[in-house]
Amino acid sequence: MNQRSQVTVGVLGGMGPEATLSFFDKVLRTTASPDDQGHLHLLIDNNPHVPDRNSAVAGRGPSPAPALAEMAHRLEVAGADYLVMPCNAAHAFRDAIEQAVSIPFLSIIDETREAVLRAFPQLGCVGVLASTGCIDANLYQDAFAADNITVLVPEGEDRVCFMDLVYRVKSGDKSDAVRAGMRAIAEALIDRGAELIVAGCTEVPLVLSGTDLPLPLVDSSDVLVQSTIRRAGLESG
Amino acid sequence: MNQRSQVTVGVLGGMGPEATLSFFDKVLRTTASPDDQGHLHLLIDNNPHVPDRNSAVAGRGPSPAPALAEMAHRLEVAGADYLVMPCNAAHAFRDAIEQAVSIPFLSIIDETREAVLRAFPQLGCVGVLASTGCIDANLYQDAFAADNITVLVPEGEDRVCFMDLVYRVKSGDKSDAVRAGMRAIAEALIDRGAELIVAGCTEVPLVLSGTDLPLPLVDSSDVLVQSTIRRAGLESG
Repeated sequence: MNQRSQVTVGVLGGMGPEATLSFFDKVLRTTASPDDQGHLHLLIDNNPHVPDRNSAVAGRGPSPAPALAEMAHRLEVAGADYLVMPCNAAHAFRDAIEQAVSIPFLSIIDETREAVLRAFPQLGCVGVLASTGCIDANLYQDAFAADNITVLVPEGEDRVCFMDLVYRVKSGDKSDAVRAGMRAIAEALIDRGAELIVAGCTEVPLVLSGTDLPLPLVDSSDVLVQSTIRRAGLESG
Repeated sequence: MNQRSQVTVGVLGGMGPEATLSFFDKVLRTTASPDDQGHLHLLIDNNPHVPDRNSAVAGRGPSPAPALAEMAHRLEVAGADYLVMPCNAAHAFRDAIEQAVSIPFLSIIDETREAVLRAFPQLGCVGVLASTGCIDANLYQDAFAADNITVLVPEGEDRVCFMDLVYRVKSGDKSDAVRAGMRAIAEALIDRGAELIVAGCTEVPLVLSGTDLPLPLVDSSDVLVQSTIRRAGLESG
């Protein structure tokens, strides 16, 4: 049963465009509606010119903070009731976004943490497939810090390899080789003790799905879709 | 080879959301880029609450003109350099959009006419799969009026059946039965003398493709994607 929602959701997108497209696609699939009017009003700023988040966190490139703040402000002026951003690493610049607007910002990191704790209350160790920006900004490490949960992320060669795979996905390469590479990195986290894997980068679910792994995969993009829809007062289809 | 474009395209969307998603998807596929930054900046207002265009043209529902004008204005204020709208029938309210903004509006009807004339200069008769709103507002009939090209549209039972199929697609039904129904209506246009078929409704290509028909299918949604990208100064991938 689908209700109508008059809420407008602002989407800080384009990081990357394919992940934003996937977010939009999942919102449509999840708000099953018999007609146009039952769907969710989304204002999507697919801005691919936001400076690279990973380079910025590493101090090797310009900060995306001004661009993100401007996008957030524009979305608020255009009528957004709250904001979401289907990119984990960009959440390193969350403060700049929240300072630019007076509407709420729904964090993919916080929502994913809550979804994980809800579904796996006994969890002791989580493996997060995250980009270097997300890792170096300690986004998931900090989120789980108070929960007595160990957060494992790709290390050494795997971290380098993971970034290569993410940029290959961004370039349009969603081949079996890329999927196999992602799977191997997830399996290394499992070998190190992870009890479940979080896809903590929105490029990951473009190639890797739960059926690829022997343990549960929590997709941060899926979580954000569910949270976005729930907050709008719509039920999942 | 992909150039960078600083252009921002405003998309009046949500009519329906699936057609807007498909437009976004096709833009990404067409602007092949090795990275995020080479893609096109799109501001997408996926507003599914725009009153039904077909009911409005038939005088059986509220006009979408105020909502479309407001969306166009918001997109201009948010920084759009020009506007596109991946919905043919809504072009019956084009005047309201153009009066609300000072930036150009790229018409799917005009662009499709030009693409058809470019590709088929000897054309004498075109069949257009169009919704009742698009037909009753004479959008394609008027567009081709000066070209000595006969415009055929679904008549009688076929027109009723086509609308049923469009609303089934909007409800998420992209089954073989829906495709077969669309194909039969296109074939009736061919039997009446159409030398090619225009998918003049953005729900059509969600189920029907060129390989389903014995004659060329010109997809208005594809044409709008190409025109949007060309105008941004980007080349197709």
